[in-house]
Amino acid sequence: MLDCVIVGSGVAGISAALTLQANGKSFLLFGTPSLSEKIEKAELIRNYPGLSQVSGKEFCAALQKQLQDAKIEIKNEKVAGVYALNDKFTLLTQEGNTYESRTVILACGVESIKQIEGETEFVGRGVSYCATCDGFLYKGKTIAVVCTTKRLEHEIEHLASFAEKVYLIPMYKDVAVDYKNVTIIKKMPIKIDGQARVEKLAFTAPPAPDIPAELPVHGVFMLRDSVSPSVLMGGLETKEGHVVIQRDTSTNIKGCFAAGDCTGRPYQYAKAVGEGNVAAHSVTLYLR
Amino acid sequence: MLDCVIVGSGVAGISAALTLQANGKSFLLFGTPSLSEKIEKAELIRNYPGLSQVSGKEFCAALQKQLQDAKIEIKNEKVAGVYALNDKFTLLTQEGNTYESRTVILACGVESIKQIEGETEFVGRGVSYCATCDGFLYKGKTIAVVCTTKRLEHEIEHLASFAEKVYLIPMYKDVAVDYKNVTIIKKMPIKIDGQARVEKLAFTAPPAPDIPAELPVHGVFMLRDSVSPSVLMGGLETKEGHVVIQRDTSTNIKGCFAAGDCTGRPYQYAKAVGEGNVAAHSVTLYLR
Repeated sequence: MLDCVIVGSGVAGISAALTLQANGKSFLLFGTPSLSEKIEKAELIRNYPGLSQVSGKEFCAALQKQLQDAKIEIKNEKVAGVYALNDKFTLLTQEGNTYESRTVILACGVESIKQIEGETEFVGRGVSYCATCDGFLYKGKTIAVVCTTKRLEHEIEHLASFAEKVYLIPMYKDVAVDYKNVTIIKKMPIKIDGQARVEKLAFTAPPAPDIPAELPVHGVFMLRDSVSPSVLMGGLETKEGHVVIQRDTSTNIKGCFAAGDCTGRPYQYAKAVGEGNVAAHSVTLYLR
Repeated sequence: MLDCVIVGSGVAGISAALTLQANGKSFLLFGTPSLSEKIEKAELIRNYPGLSQVSGKEFCAALQKQLQDAKIEIKNEKVAGVYALNDKFTLLTQEGNTYESRTVILACGVESIKQIEGETEFVGRGVSYCATCDGFLYKGKTIAVVCTTKRLEHEIEHLASFAEKVYLIPMYKDVAVDYKNVTIIKKMPIKIDGQARVEKLAFTAPPAPDIPAELPVHGVFMLRDSVSPSVLMGGLETKEGHVVIQRDTSTNIKGCFAAGDCTGRPYQYAKAVGEGNVAAHSVTLYLR
Protein backbone atom coordinates (compact mmCIF):
# COMPACT_ATOMS: atom_id res chain seq x y z
CA MET A 1 0.00 0.00 0.00
CA LEU A 2 1.33 3.41 -1.00
CA ASP A 3 1.37 6.40 1.34
CA CYS A 4 0.00 8.66 -1.38
CA VAL A 5 -1.06 8.89 -5.01
CA ILE A 6 -0.74 12.23 -6.74
CA VAL A 7 -3.07 12.81 -9.67
CA GLY A 8 -1.54 15.30 -12.07
CA SER A 9 1.97 16.26 -13.14
CA GLY A 10 1.61 20.01 -13.30
CA VAL A 11 3.56 22.16 -10.84
CA ALA A 12 1.17 21.41 -7.96
CA GLY A 13 1.70 17.66 -8.35
CA ILE A 14 5.46 18.07 -8.78
CA SER A 15 5.69 20.30 -5.71
CA ALA A 16 3.78 17.69 -3.69
CA ALA A 17 6.01 14.89 -5.00
CA LEU A 18 9.27 16.68 -4.14
CA THR A 19 8.07 17.33 -0.61
CA LEU A 20 6.63 13.85 -0.05
CA GLN A 21 10.01 12.51 -1.10
CA ALA A 22 11.80 14.85 1.30
CA ASN A 23 9.45 13.51 4.00
CA GLY A 24 10.32 9.91 3.13
CA LYS A 25 6.85 8.91 1.94
CA SER A 26 6.06 6.33 -0.75
CA PHE A 27 3.99 7.67 -3.61
CA LEU A 28 3.20 7.55 -7.31
CA LEU A 29 2.94 10.66 -9.44
CA PHE A 30 0.40 10.14 -12.24
CA GLY A 31 0.74 12.31 -15.28
CA THR A 32 2.43 12.65 -18.63
CA PRO A 33 6.17 12.81 -19.40
CA SER A 34 5.60 16.23 -20.97
CA LEU A 35 4.26 17.26 -17.51
CA SER A 36 1.63 19.78 -18.51
CA GLU A 37 0.50 21.17 -21.83
CA LYS A 38 -0.48 24.37 -20.05
CA ILE A 39 3.07 25.00 -18.78
CA GLU A 40 4.65 23.99 -22.08
CA LYS A 41 2.56 26.48 -23.98
CA ALA A 42 3.16 29.41 -21.62
CA GLU A 43 4.92 32.17 -23.54
CA LEU A 44 6.73 33.98 -20.76
CA ILE A 45 6.50 33.47 -17.01
CA ARG A 46 7.33 36.70 -15.24
CA ASN A 47 6.20 36.26 -11.68
CA TYR A 48 7.53 32.89 -10.53
CA PRO A 49 10.13 33.58 -7.82
CA GLY A 50 13.55 32.18 -8.58
CA LEU A 51 13.19 31.93 -12.35
CA SER A 52 13.41 35.28 -14.07
CA GLN A 53 11.47 35.60 -17.30
CA VAL A 54 11.48 31.97 -18.40
CA SER A 55 9.44 30.51 -21.21
CA GLY A 56 7.04 27.68 -20.51
CA LYS A 57 9.38 25.31 -22.35
CA GLU A 58 12.33 26.35 -20.16
CA PHE A 59 10.24 25.96 -17.01
CA CYS A 60 9.14 22.51 -18.15
CA ALA A 61 12.74 21.50 -18.89
CA ALA A 62 13.85 22.71 -15.45
CA LEU A 63 11.09 20.69 -13.78
CA GLN A 64 11.91 17.58 -15.81
CA LYS A 65 15.57 17.85 -14.87
CA GLN A 66 14.62 18.30 -11.22
CA LEU A 67 12.44 15.19 -11.25
CA GLN A 68 15.29 13.27 -12.87
CA ASP A 69 17.79 14.55 -10.29
CA ALA A 70 15.40 13.49 -7.55
CA LYS A 71 14.75 10.14 -9.26
CA ILE A 72 11.01 10.73 -9.28
CA GLU A 73 9.30 8.99 -12.17
CA ILE A 74 6.07 10.02 -13.76
CA LYS A 75 3.56 7.18 -13.92
CA ASN A 76 2.35 7.66 -17.46
CA GLU A 77 -1.18 6.29 -17.04
CA LYS A 78 -4.44 8.17 -17.25
CA VAL A 79 -6.40 8.07 -14.01
CA ALA A 80 -9.96 6.96 -14.68
CA GLY A 81 -11.28 7.15 -11.13
CA VAL A 82 -10.40 7.19 -7.45
CA TYR A 83 -12.56 5.32 -4.95
CA ALA A 84 -12.53 5.86 -1.18
CA LEU A 85 -13.24 2.77 0.90
CA ASN A 86 -12.34 1.82 4.47
CA ASP A 87 -9.65 4.42 5.11
CA LYS A 88 -7.89 3.69 1.86
CA PHE A 89 -8.17 4.70 -1.76
CA THR A 90 -8.22 2.60 -4.89
CA LEU A 91 -7.09 4.32 -8.05
CA LEU A 92 -8.05 2.91 -11.44
CA THR A 93 -6.27 3.87 -14.61
CA GLN A 94 -7.56 3.82 -18.15
CA GLU A 95 -4.76 1.32 -18.82
CA GLY A 96 -6.66 -1.07 -16.58
CA ASN A 97 -4.33 -1.06 -13.56
CA THR A 98 -5.31 -0.47 -9.93
CA TYR A 99 -3.25 1.08 -7.15
CA GLU A 100 -3.96 1.30 -3.44
CA SER A 101 -3.00 4.22 -1.27
CA ARG A 102 -3.72 5.67 2.14
CA THR A 103 -4.06 9.21 0.81
CA VAL A 104 -4.68 11.09 -2.43
CA ILE A 105 -3.57 14.48 -3.67
CA LEU A 106 -5.73 15.72 -6.53
CA ALA A 107 -3.69 18.08 -8.68
CA CYS A 108 -5.52 17.48 -11.91
CA GLY A 109 -5.79 21.06 -13.09
CA VAL A 110 -8.84 22.81 -14.29
CA GLU A 111 -10.89 22.47 -17.41
CA SER A 112 -10.21 25.47 -19.54
CA ILE A 113 -12.90 24.16 -21.86
CA LYS A 114 -16.49 24.85 -20.99
CA GLN A 115 -18.63 21.83 -20.41
CA ILE A 116 -21.40 21.12 -22.87
CA GLU A 117 -24.92 21.31 -21.51
CA GLY A 118 -26.01 17.84 -20.38
CA GLU A 119 -22.44 16.58 -20.08
CA THR A 120 -22.34 16.02 -16.32
CA GLU A 121 -25.95 14.84 -16.29
CA PHE A 122 -25.21 11.95 -18.68
CA VAL A 123 -21.85 10.79 -17.26
CA GLY A 124 -22.07 6.98 -17.13
CA ARG A 125 -25.23 7.10 -19.25
CA GLY A 126 -23.64 7.68 -22.60
CA VAL A 127 -21.05 10.33 -21.75
CA SER A 128 -17.54 8.95 -21.22
CA TYR A 129 -14.11 10.47 -20.72
CA CYS A 130 -12.21 7.26 -21.39
CA ALA A 131 -11.91 5.64 -24.81
CA THR A 132 -9.98 2.67 -23.43
CA CYS A 133 -12.46 1.99 -20.62
CA ASP A 134 -15.69 2.36 -22.51
CA GLY A 135 -14.87 2.08 -26.22
CA PHE A 136 -15.98 -1.58 -26.49
CA LEU A 137 -19.44 -0.64 -25.16
CA TYR A 138 -20.15 1.09 -28.46
CA LYS A 139 -19.37 -1.77 -30.81
CA GLY A 140 -21.43 -1.29 -33.95
CA LYS A 141 -22.96 1.93 -32.64
CA THR A 142 -22.86 5.62 -33.56
CA ILE A 143 -20.85 7.93 -31.33
CA ALA A 144 -19.62 11.50 -31.22
CA VAL A 145 -16.14 12.36 -29.98
CA VAL A 146 -15.25 15.84 -28.76
CA CYS A 147 -11.46 15.90 -28.70
CA THR A 148 -9.70 18.92 -27.21
CA THR A 149 -6.10 18.08 -27.97
CA LYS A 150 -4.04 16.48 -30.69
CA ARG A 151 -2.27 14.42 -28.03
CA LEU A 152 -5.40 12.30 -27.63
CA GLU A 153 -5.92 11.65 -31.34
CA HIS A 154 -4.76 8.04 -30.96
CA GLU A 155 -7.81 7.36 -28.81
CA ILE A 156 -10.03 8.21 -31.73
CA GLU A 157 -8.46 5.33 -33.64
CA HIS A 158 -9.38 3.05 -30.76
CA LEU A 159 -12.97 4.25 -30.77
CA ALA A 160 -13.23 4.01 -34.57
CA SER A 161 -12.22 0.36 -34.34
CA PHE A 162 -15.34 -0.41 -32.28
CA ALA A 163 -18.03 2.05 -33.36
CA GLU A 164 -19.75 1.77 -36.69
CA LYS A 165 -19.86 5.52 -37.16
CA VAL A 166 -17.84 8.24 -35.41
CA TYR A 167 -18.55 11.97 -35.61
CA LEU A 168 -15.38 13.73 -34.56
CA ILE A 169 -15.53 17.30 -33.26
CA PRO A 170 -11.89 18.40 -32.95
CA MET A 171 -10.99 21.49 -30.91
CA TYR A 172 -7.47 21.81 -32.30
CA LYS A 173 -5.75 22.46 -35.60
CA ASP A 174 -4.01 20.02 -37.97
CA VAL A 175 -6.41 17.15 -37.52
CA ALA A 176 -4.72 14.00 -38.78
CA VAL A 177 -7.48 11.44 -38.51
CA ASP A 178 -8.31 9.49 -41.63
CA TYR A 179 -10.63 6.54 -41.06
CA LYS A 180 -13.49 5.62 -43.36
CA ASN A 181 -16.05 5.63 -40.56
CA VAL A 182 -14.99 8.98 -39.05
CA THR A 183 -16.73 12.18 -40.17
CA ILE A 184 -15.27 15.46 -39.00
CA ILE A 185 -17.63 18.18 -37.81
CA LYS A 186 -16.22 21.69 -37.51
CA LYS A 187 -18.96 23.17 -35.31
CA MET A 188 -19.30 22.83 -31.55
CA PRO A 189 -22.43 21.15 -30.22
CA ILE A 190 -24.52 23.06 -27.69
CA LYS A 191 -26.25 20.23 -25.87
CA ILE A 192 -26.19 16.51 -25.11
CA ASP A 193 -29.75 15.26 -24.87
CA GLY A 194 -31.79 12.12 -24.26
CA GLN A 195 -34.12 10.38 -21.84
CA ALA A 196 -32.56 7.62 -19.71
CA ARG A 197 -29.42 7.69 -21.82
CA VAL A 198 -27.78 9.92 -24.41
CA GLU A 199 -29.81 9.96 -27.61
CA LYS A 200 -28.59 12.99 -29.53
CA LEU A 201 -26.12 15.79 -29.86
CA ALA A 202 -27.65 19.17 -30.66
CA PHE A 203 -26.15 22.00 -32.72
CA THR A 204 -27.54 25.51 -33.25
CA ALA A 205 -27.88 24.69 -36.96
CA PRO A 206 -27.04 21.71 -39.19
CA PRO A 207 -23.20 21.57 -38.93
CA ALA A 208 -22.95 20.27 -42.51
CA PRO A 209 -25.44 19.78 -45.37
CA ASP A 210 -25.81 16.05 -44.66
CA ILE A 211 -25.73 16.27 -40.85
CA PRO A 212 -28.87 17.30 -38.94
CA ALA A 213 -28.89 19.90 -36.13
CA GLU A 214 -30.08 17.13 -33.84
CA LEU A 215 -27.64 14.33 -34.53
CA PRO A 216 -28.70 10.90 -33.21
CA VAL A 217 -25.82 9.23 -31.27
CA HIS A 218 -25.55 6.39 -28.76
CA GLY A 219 -22.69 7.94 -26.86
CA VAL A 220 -20.46 11.00 -26.56
CA PHE A 221 -16.77 10.76 -25.69
CA MET A 222 -15.12 13.83 -24.25
CA LEU A 223 -11.38 13.42 -24.80
CA ARG A 224 -9.70 15.99 -22.61
CA ASP A 225 -6.35 16.39 -20.93
CA SER A 226 -7.90 16.85 -17.55
CA VAL A 227 -11.04 15.33 -16.19
CA SER A 228 -13.01 17.34 -13.69
CA PRO A 229 -12.20 16.29 -10.10
CA SER A 230 -15.79 15.48 -9.24
CA VAL A 231 -15.90 13.02 -12.14
CA LEU A 232 -12.65 11.42 -10.94
CA MET A 233 -13.88 11.05 -7.38
CA GLY A 234 -17.52 10.65 -6.47
CA GLY A 235 -18.75 12.53 -3.41
CA LEU A 236 -16.07 15.20 -3.62
CA GLU A 237 -17.37 18.62 -2.63
CA THR A 238 -16.94 21.14 -5.41
CA LYS A 239 -18.14 24.67 -5.98
CA GLU A 240 -18.37 26.23 -9.42
CA GLY A 241 -16.16 23.48 -10.81
CA HIS A 242 -13.44 23.79 -8.16
CA VAL A 243 -12.61 21.41 -5.32
CA VAL A 244 -13.50 22.98 -1.97
CA ILE A 245 -10.43 22.87 0.30
CA GLN A 246 -9.40 24.20 3.68
CA ARG A 247 -6.14 26.09 4.27
CA ASP A 248 -4.38 22.74 4.86
CA THR A 249 -5.69 21.64 1.41
CA SER A 250 -7.97 18.99 2.92
CA THR A 251 -11.22 18.23 1.08
CA ASN A 252 -14.50 16.90 2.47
CA ILE A 253 -13.18 13.34 2.00
CA LYS A 254 -10.84 12.17 4.76
CA GLY A 255 -7.35 11.52 3.43
CA CYS A 256 -8.05 13.32 0.17
CA PHE A 257 -6.27 16.61 -0.44
CA ALA A 258 -6.25 18.91 -3.46
CA ALA A 259 -3.82 21.46 -4.87
CA GLY A 260 -3.33 23.73 -7.83
CA ASP A 261 -5.74 25.07 -10.41
CA CYS A 262 -8.39 22.48 -9.49
CA THR A 263 -8.93 24.30 -6.17
CA GLY A 264 -9.72 27.63 -7.81
CA ARG A 265 -8.23 30.94 -8.81
CA PRO A 266 -5.71 32.45 -9.13
CA TYR A 267 -4.51 29.99 -11.78
CA GLN A 268 -0.87 30.68 -11.07
CA TYR A 269 2.28 28.56 -10.84
CA ALA A 270 3.28 30.08 -7.51
CA LYS A 271 -0.11 29.34 -5.95
CA ALA A 272 -0.10 25.78 -7.31
CA VAL A 273 3.43 25.14 -6.04
CA GLY A 274 2.44 26.44 -2.61
CA GLU A 275 -0.65 24.28 -2.35
CA GLY A 276 1.24 21.19 -3.56
CA ASN A 277 3.77 21.75 -0.80
CA VAL A 278 1.11 22.24 1.85
CA ALA A 279 -0.77 19.14 0.62
CA ALA A 280 2.36 17.02 1.03
CA HIS A 281 2.83 18.28 4.58
CA SER A 282 -0.83 17.65 5.37
CA VAL A 283 -0.54 14.10 4.00
CA THR A 284 2.51 13.56 6.20
CA LEU A 285 0.64 14.80 9.28
CA TYR A 286 -2.41 12.70 8.35
CA LEU A 287 -0.35 9.51 8.05
CA ARG A 288 1.02 9.85 11.59
CA MET B 1 -1.08 57.05 -2.02
CA LEU B 2 0.36 53.63 -2.84
CA ASP B 3 -1.80 50.67 -3.81
CA CYS B 4 0.12 48.39 -1.44
CA VAL B 5 3.01 48.16 0.98
CA ILE B 6 4.71 44.80 1.41
CA VAL B 7 6.46 44.22 4.72
CA GLY B 8 9.26 41.71 4.31
CA SER B 9 11.65 40.73 1.52
CA GLY B 10 11.60 36.98 1.92
CA VAL B 11 10.13 34.82 -0.85
CA ALA B 12 6.54 35.60 0.17
CA GLY B 13 7.13 39.34 -0.16
CA ILE B 14 9.03 38.92 -3.42
CA SER B 15 6.31 36.70 -4.86
CA ALA B 16 3.71 39.32 -3.94
CA ALA B 17 5.82 42.11 -5.47
CA LEU B 18 6.33 40.29 -8.79
CA THR B 19 2.61 39.66 -9.10
CA LEU B 20 1.54 43.16 -8.03
CA GLN B 21 3.87 44.48 -10.70
CA ALA B 22 2.37 42.13 -13.28
CA ASN B 23 -1.02 43.49 -12.24
CA GLY B 24 0.13 47.08 -12.71
CA LYS B 25 -0.16 48.12 -9.05
CA SER B 26 2.00 50.69 -7.27
CA PHE B 27 3.78 49.35 -4.19
CA LEU B 28 6.85 49.46 -1.98
CA LEU B 29 8.68 46.33 -0.87
CA PHE B 30 10.20 46.87 2.58
CA GLY B 31 13.14 44.66 3.50
CA THR B 32 16.88 44.31 3.29
CA PRO B 33 19.08 44.14 0.19
CA SER B 34 20.26 40.70 1.36
CA LEU B 35 16.56 39.71 1.19
CA SER B 36 16.40 37.17 4.02
CA GLU B 37 18.95 35.78 6.40
CA LYS B 38 16.91 32.59 6.57
CA ILE B 39 17.18 31.95 2.83
CA GLU B 40 20.84 32.95 2.70
CA LYS B 41 21.73 30.45 5.38
CA ALA B 42 19.80 27.52 3.88
CA GLU B 43 22.25 24.77 3.05
CA LEU B 44 20.40 22.94 0.29
CA ILE B 45 16.90 23.48 -1.01
CA ARG B 46 15.58 20.26 -2.47
CA ASN B 47 11.88 20.75 -2.88
CA TYR B 48 11.38 24.10 -4.56
CA PRO B 49 9.96 23.40 -8.02
CA GLY B 50 12.05 24.75 -10.87
CA LEU B 51 15.35 25.00 -9.02
CA SER B 52 16.98 21.63 -8.51
CA GLN B 53 19.16 21.30 -5.43
CA VAL B 54 20.17 24.93 -5.01
CA SER B 55 21.95 26.41 -2.02
CA GLY B 56 20.35 29.25 -0.11
CA LYS B 57 22.99 31.60 -1.53
CA GLU B 58 22.17 30.56 -5.10
CA PHE B 59 18.45 30.97 -4.46
CA CYS B 60 19.08 34.43 -3.01
CA ALA B 61 21.20 35.41 -6.00
CA ALA B 62 18.48 34.20 -8.41
CA LEU B 63 15.86 36.24 -6.55
CA GLN B 64 18.07 39.34 -6.50
CA LYS B 65 18.68 39.05 -10.24
CA GLN B 66 14.96 38.63 -10.83
CA LEU B 67 14.13 41.76 -8.83
CA GLN B 68 16.78 43.63 -10.80
CA ASP B 69 15.41 42.36 -14.13
CA ALA B 70 11.94 43.44 -13.03
CA LYS B 71 13.28 46.80 -11.77
CA ILE B 72 11.78 46.23 -8.33
CA GLU B 73 13.75 47.98 -5.61
CA ILE B 74 13.89 46.95 -2.00
CA LYS B 75 13.03 49.80 0.35
CA ASN B 76 15.78 49.31 2.89
CA GLU B 77 13.99 50.68 5.95
CA LYS B 78 12.85 48.82 9.04
CA VAL B 79 9.12 48.94 9.51
CA ALA B 80 8.28 50.09 13.04
CA GLY B 81 4.51 49.91 12.80
CA VAL B 82 1.50 49.91 10.50
CA TYR B 83 -1.65 51.79 11.47
CA ALA B 84 -5.08 51.27 9.94
CA LEU B 85 -7.25 54.36 9.74
CA ASN B 86 -10.17 55.32 7.48
CA ASP B 87 -9.67 52.71 4.77
CA LYS B 88 -5.98 53.41 4.43
CA PHE B 89 -2.80 52.40 6.16
CA THR B 90 0.06 54.49 7.46
CA LEU B 91 3.40 52.74 7.71
CA LEU B 92 6.11 54.15 9.97
CA THR B 93 9.73 53.16 9.61
CA GLN B 94 12.45 53.20 12.24
CA GLU B 95 14.21 55.68 9.94
CA GLY B 96 11.39 58.10 10.75
CA ASN B 97 9.59 58.08 7.38
CA THR B 98 5.87 57.51 6.83
CA TYR B 99 4.14 55.96 3.82
CA GLU B 100 0.46 55.77 2.96
CA SER B 101 -1.15 52.85 1.23
CA ARG B 102 -4.57 51.44 0.51
CA THR B 103 -3.53 47.88 1.39
CA VAL B 104 -0.82 45.99 3.27
CA ILE B 105 0.74 42.58 2.77
CA LEU B 106 2.49 41.35 5.90
CA ALA B 107 5.26 38.95 4.91
CA CYS B 108 7.49 39.54 7.88
CA GLY B 109 8.46 35.97 8.62
CA VAL B 110 8.28 34.22 11.91
CA GLU B 111 10.29 34.58 15.06
CA SER B 112 12.51 31.54 15.34
CA ILE B 113 13.48 32.86 18.75
CA LYS B 114 11.18 32.22 21.64
CA GLN B 115 9.77 35.24 23.35
CA ILE B 116 10.87 35.96 26.89
CA GLU B 117 8.16 35.82 29.52
CA GLY B 118 6.73 39.30 30.04
CA GLU B 119 7.96 40.54 26.66
CA THR B 120 4.58 41.12 25.02
CA GLU B 121 3.07 42.32 28.29
CA PHE B 122 5.55 45.19 28.60
CA VAL B 123 5.68 46.33 24.94
CA GLY B 124 5.51 50.13 25.08
CA ARG B 125 6.11 50.05 28.84
CA GLY B 126 9.83 49.41 28.80
CA VAL B 127 10.10 46.76 26.09
CA SER B 128 11.10 48.13 22.68
CA TYR B 129 12.05 46.60 19.33
CA CYS B 130 13.47 49.79 17.87
CA ALA B 131 16.71 51.39 19.03
CA THR B 132 16.30 54.36 16.69
CA CYS B 133 12.72 55.06 17.76
CA ASP B 134 13.07 54.70 21.51
CA GLY B 135 16.80 54.96 22.32
CA PHE B 136 16.60 58.61 23.41
CA LEU B 137 13.96 57.72 26.03
CA TYR B 138 16.66 55.97 28.05
CA LYS B 139 19.14 58.83 28.31
CA GLY B 140 21.15 58.32 31.50
CA LYS B 141 19.30 55.11 32.35
CA THR B 142 20.13 51.40 32.63
CA ILE B 143 18.93 49.10 29.88
CA ALA B 144 19.31 45.53 28.73
CA VAL B 145 19.62 44.65 25.03
CA VAL B 146 18.84 41.19 23.74
CA CYS B 147 20.35 41.10 20.25
CA THR B 148 19.69 38.08 18.03
CA THR B 149 21.86 38.89 15.05
CA LYS B 150 25.22 40.48 14.31
CA ARG B 151 23.54 42.53 11.57
CA LEU B 152 21.91 44.67 14.26
CA GLU B 153 25.07 45.29 16.28
CA HIS B 154 25.25 48.90 15.07
CA GLU B 155 22.03 49.61 16.95
CA ILE B 156 23.79 48.77 20.20
CA GLU B 157 26.17 51.64 19.54
CA HIS B 158 23.21 53.95 19.18
CA LEU B 159 21.72 52.76 22.48
CA ALA B 160 25.06 52.99 24.28
CA SER B 161 25.31 56.64 23.26
CA PHE B 162 22.17 57.42 25.27
CA ALA B 163 22.03 54.98 28.16
CA GLU B 164 24.33 55.24 31.13
CA LYS B 165 24.66 51.48 31.40
CA VAL B 166 23.90 48.76 28.83
CA TYR B 167 23.73 45.03 29.56
CA LEU B 168 24.09 43.25 26.25
CA ILE B 169 22.82 39.70 25.85
CA PRO B 170 24.02 38.59 22.40
CA MET B 171 22.51 35.50 20.76
CA TYR B 172 25.22 35.16 18.11
CA LYS B 173 28.94 34.48 17.93
CA ASP B 174 31.82 36.90 17.33
CA VAL B 175 30.45 39.77 19.33
CA ALA B 176 32.34 42.91 18.31
CA VAL B 177 30.96 45.47 20.71
CA ASP B 178 33.48 47.42 22.75
CA TYR B 179 32.04 50.36 24.61
CA LYS B 180 32.95 51.29 28.16
CA ASN B 181 29.34 51.33 29.33
CA VAL B 182 28.39 47.96 27.75
CA THR B 183 28.64 44.76 29.81
CA ILE B 184 28.15 41.48 27.99
CA ILE B 185 26.07 38.77 29.65
CA LYS B 186 26.36 35.27 28.24
CA LYS B 187 23.20 33.81 29.79
CA MET B 188 19.63 34.18 28.55
CA PRO B 189 17.12 35.88 30.85
CA ILE B 190 13.93 34.01 31.71
CA LYS B 191 11.60 36.88 32.52
CA ILE B 192 10.96 40.59 32.16
CA ASP B 193 9.28 41.86 35.30
CA GLY B 194 7.91 44.99 36.92
CA GLN B 195 4.74 46.78 38.02
CA ALA B 196 3.48 49.57 35.74
CA ARG B 197 6.72 49.46 33.73
CA VAL B 198 9.73 47.20 33.30
CA GLU B 199 11.80 47.15 36.50
CA LYS B 200 14.02 44.11 36.19
CA LEU B 201 15.32 41.29 34.06
CA ALA B 202 15.38 37.89 35.79
CA PHE B 203 17.86 35.03 35.27
CA THR B 204 17.71 31.54 36.80
CA ALA B 205 20.95 32.34 38.66
CA PRO B 206 23.37 35.29 38.79
CA PRO B 207 24.73 35.41 35.20
CA ALA B 208 28.10 36.67 36.46
CA PRO B 209 29.68 37.16 39.93
CA ASP B 210 28.92 40.89 39.96
CA ILE B 211 25.48 40.70 38.30
CA PRO B 212 22.44 39.71 40.36
CA ALA B 213 19.85 37.13 39.21
CA GLU B 214 17.29 39.94 39.34
CA LEU B 215 18.95 42.71 37.39
CA PRO B 216 17.34 46.16 37.81
CA VAL B 217 16.79 47.83 34.38
CA HIS B 218 14.64 50.69 33.07
CA GLY B 219 14.10 49.14 29.70
CA VAL B 220 14.73 46.07 27.54
CA PHE B 221 15.46 46.31 23.83
CA MET B 222 14.81 43.23 21.74
CA LEU B 223 16.87 43.61 18.55
CA ARG B 224 15.55 41.04 16.12
CA ASP B 225 15.40 40.63 12.39
CA SER B 226 11.69 40.17 12.40
CA VAL B 227 9.18 41.72 14.69
CA SER B 228 6.06 39.74 15.46
CA PRO B 229 3.13 40.81 13.26
CA SER B 230 0.89 41.64 16.22
CA VAL B 231 3.53 44.08 17.47
CA LEU B 232 3.75 45.66 14.00
CA MET B 233 0.02 46.05 13.68
CA GLY B 234 -2.29 46.48 16.64
CA GLY B 235 -5.60 44.62 16.54
CA LEU B 236 -4.34 41.94 14.18
CA GLU B 237 -5.79 38.53 14.99
CA THR B 238 -3.07 35.99 15.71
CA LYS B 239 -3.07 32.47 17.05
CA GLU B 240 -0.03 30.89 18.65
CA GLY B 241 2.16 33.62 17.20
CA HIS B 242 0.80 33.32 13.64
CA VAL B 243 -1.44 35.70 11.74
CA VAL B 244 -4.86 34.15 11.19
CA ILE B 245 -5.70 34.26 7.48
CA GLN B 246 -8.37 32.94 5.16
CA ARG B 247 -7.63 31.03 1.96
CA ASP B 248 -7.44 34.36 0.10
CA THR B 249 -4.80 35.46 2.70
CA SER B 250 -7.10 38.14 4.15
CA THR B 251 -6.71 38.91 7.86
CA ASN B 252 -9.29 40.26 10.30
CA ILE B 253 -8.29 43.79 9.26
CA LYS B 254 -9.89 44.97 6.01
CA GLY B 255 -7.26 45.58 3.33
CA CYS B 256 -4.55 43.79 5.31
CA PHE B 257 -3.30 40.48 3.93
CA ALA B 258 -0.54 38.17 5.16
CA ALA B 259 1.71 35.59 3.51
CA GLY B 260 4.61 33.30 4.27
CA ASP B 261 5.98 31.97 7.52
CA CYS B 262 4.08 34.58 9.56
CA THR B 263 0.82 32.78 8.72
CA GLY B 264 1.98 29.45 10.11
CA ARG B 265 3.48 26.13 9.17
CA PRO B 266 4.80 24.60 6.99
CA TYR B 267 7.70 27.05 6.96
CA GLN B 268 8.51 26.35 3.35
CA TYR B 269 9.59 28.45 0.37
CA ALA B 270 6.93 26.92 -1.87
CA LYS B 271 4.16 27.68 0.58
CA ALA B 272 5.42 31.25 1.10
CA VAL B 273 5.67 31.87 -2.64
CA GLY B 274 2.13 30.58 -3.10
CA GLU B 275 0.65 32.77 -0.40
CA GLY B 276 2.56 35.83 -1.66
CA ASN B 277 1.04 35.27 -5.07
CA VAL B 278 -2.47 34.81 -3.70
CA ALA B 279 -2.08 37.92 -1.50
CA ALA B 280 -1.17 40.02 -4.55
CA HIS B 281 -4.24 38.76 -6.39
CA SER B 282 -6.44 39.42 -3.36
CA VAL B 283 -5.06 42.97 -3.10
CA THR B 284 -5.84 43.50 -6.78
CA LEU B 285 -9.41 42.28 -6.30
CA TYR B 286 -9.78 44.38 -3.13
CA LEU B 287 -8.65 47.55 -4.92
CA ARG B 288 -11.33 47.22 -7.60
